[in-house]
Amino acid sequence: MFELIKTDASTKARLGRITTAHGVVDTPVYMPVGTQGSVKAIDPRELREMGAQIILGNTYHLNIRPGLDIIRAAGGLHRFINWPAPILTDSGGFQVFSLAKIRKIKQHGVEFRSHLDGSALFLGPKEAMEIQRTLGSDIAMAFDECPPHDAPAKDQRLAVERTMRWARECREQPRASGQLVFGIVQGGSNAALREECAKTIVALELDGYAIGGVSVGEPEPEMMKALELTEPFLPVDRARYAMGLGTPAQMVELVARGMDMFDCVLPTRVARNGTAFTRKGAIGVKGGSYKADFRPIEDGCGCFACQHFTRAYLRHLLNVDEILGLRMLSVHNSHLFLKVMADVRAALAAGTFAEFRREFVASYVPSRKVLSAREAAALER
Amino acid sequence: MFELIKTDASTKARLGRITTAHGVVDTPVYMPVGTQGSVKAIDPRELREMGAQIILGNTYHLNIRPGLDIIRAAGGLHRFINWPAPILTDSGGFQVFSLAKIRKIKQHGVEFRSHLDGSALFLGPKEAMEIQRTLGSDIAMAFDECPPHDAPAKDQRLAVERTMRWARECREQPRASGQLVFGIVQGGSNAALREECAKTIVALELDGYAIGGVSVGEPEPEMMKALELTEPFLPVDRARYAMGLGTPAQMVELVARGMDMFDCVLPTRVARNGTAFTRKGAIGVKGGSYKADFRPIEDGCGCFACQHFTRAYLRHLLNVDEILGLRMLSVHNSHLFLKVMADVRAALAAGTFAEFRREFVASYVPSRKVLSAREAAALER
Repeated sequence: MFELIKTDASTKARLGRITTAHGVVDTPVYMPVGTQGSVKAIDPRELREMGAQIILGNTYHLNIRPGLDIIRAAGGLHRFINWPAPILTDSGGFQVFSLAKIRKIKQHGVEFRSHLDGSALFLGPKEAMEIQRTLGSDIAMAFDECPPHDAPAKDQRLAVERTMRWARECREQPRASGQLVFGIVQGGSNAALREECAKTIVALELDGYAIGGVSVGEPEPEMMKALELTEPFLPVDRARYAMGLGTPAQMVELVARGMDMFDCVLPTRVARNGTAFTRKGAIGVKGGSYKADFRPIEDGCGCFACQHFTRAYLRHLLNVDEILGLRMLSVHNSHLFLKVMADVRAALAAGTFAEFRREFVASYVPSRKVLSAREAAALER
Repeated sequence: MFELIKTDASTKARLGRITTAHGVVDTPVYMPVGTQGSVKAIDPRELREMGAQIILGNTYHLNIRPGLDIIRAAGGLHRFINWPAPILTDSGGFQVFSLAKIRKIKQHGVEFRSHLDGSALFLGPKEAMEIQRTLGSDIAMAFDECPPHDAPAKDQRLAVERTMRWARECREQPRASGQLVFGIVQGGSNAALREECAKTIVALELDGYAIGGVSVGEPEPEMMKALELTEPFLPVDRARYAMGLGTPAQMVELVARGMDMFDCVLPTRVARNGTAFTRKGAIGVKGGSYKADFRPIEDGCGCFACQHFTRAYLRHLLNVDEILGLRMLSVHNSHLFLKVMADVRAALAAGTFAEFRREFVASYVPSRKVLSAREAAALER
């Protein structure tokens, strides 16, 4: 299902292709996030126009609303949301450990209360795989425990043990026709745990491998470390998925570290606050400096928003709370993430990835938060 | 600028055409409302796809935000919002009298405080026309006083006097190139006031005439009466615009009473509450009865929402607060209003309007509010 087309000469970057039941996905790939069955504020036509090949859905959320009966009656998630291309579903592990307030971890899963109405629910490897089978996703994720980045060593150890045990259980569950199953490696920034978890999960011979326990509040250097500690133990002939990451520059850096797949809610989340990503970093479109700026968000950008609207107009829409403003920023941001990955693939095919990476990262100004985390890490060395 | 193509044999319905600086508008026409420079949640491509020929902008709102300097720098409203087709701008009179809390009516306009930040503003015929000249709308509306439907007779009298005086002042102001100016008739449901106001405004020989003082909280029978009291005094060779109206069935009834143009915020406003208009009346899409209903909102509807999504999916989106839900209901509702008017035009061209009207109104179930107002009016007779 994963075909490694080419490996970069000077980095770990890989050009590849994943064949799924609903079509082919070219890697490295950015996957827009449709948690509740909709990539926020964007419709499927817009997704196709911006070049999306695969989107995400979420087991935890879709199981609560609309519920499996309805998705089953619709003929699966693809038909329910009218997205005939590939879908990857997260297992719900992340949500159980981040959203559900009251929970009790058991041998075969987690008892918790719905974040919505407090009703008692149970999610474990068996349930998560059963839900994903009903959703009919092309790629199902194993059910894992994802602790916060600052969890004590003992908790990280326990999470790794459960993650390994649950991955084995997931492997034994029935799947939807043609459904791929990816394992998830946990272990925080602990080298021994990452190695042990990776080796155990890889031994299960799953269809692909994800690195979890990142995008859980850790500073960028810790995130990079967690990836670097895990990657050497992943087989070259399977896709590698860096969960919940990252900014455009981070994705390029992660490609250079051997990652193939990314998902991130930032493009649509920050759009709702009026923030647009560009190849030079993020900008706040609500700012007064754009009030009579009749250029597109980014010169040369081919997205629907940049082809039709100016910064001045989008700023106005955002400031008067018109939905078209956040819609168009969601479109622009998602398009940029997809286009950067398309450019990465083109550079890999042309053998120019190293230059592309250098230039892209040099001109991308990270957020203050990322910068200060980098400085702090540099001082520690 | 207005060409009367055909008058219906058995009703006052008219088939016509308005030629503006930015294109032709076929009448009877529904005009989507883009108060702040955006038809709420809908983009210009979607507007074109649903057959919109002309949209509205609002003098009061656009003057406050983004302000005239920015729209002037953009090269006018059409370019600022990227809508190259006709635009009609309301004069701001309605907003001054409904939104601005503190106001003082003077000889040449109204002193008021911005509903936004309380800043002191002044809007009168001169200012309203100057703003509309800068916006560069194809059709500018005269500045009028629009009292509430239950205003005392003395206030209705004063409002008519000011509306007549101000219309005369509006007529003398400079216009944008090719800009048409429409007068507005006030007078509530008072026959003498309506006649006096209509005759005076019509004597100004403006490019078209609107009936204002409707859609100001009055029950449907009172609205119909206000229209019927005014229409006989309007010339046949000018377009007639029923301001702020109505539901699909009301628009069909108003066409039969000789009206050519309509604007109404209902399609996008009720969409945000999960209400969809159909040819059989409005339905609440959030309702549990649609949870596994995999039909489109309306069978046979050609809108983007009905072509792509089911009631079950839209219900889910609305219930989990996904923007795509209200977006698609806004698209469906606006499309329906436009399509009903396209059907009206086709029926007028074919000479079958009377049948169309009978069938349409018979199968359209009005809201409870409209029904009870009709019952109350029937009892009074």
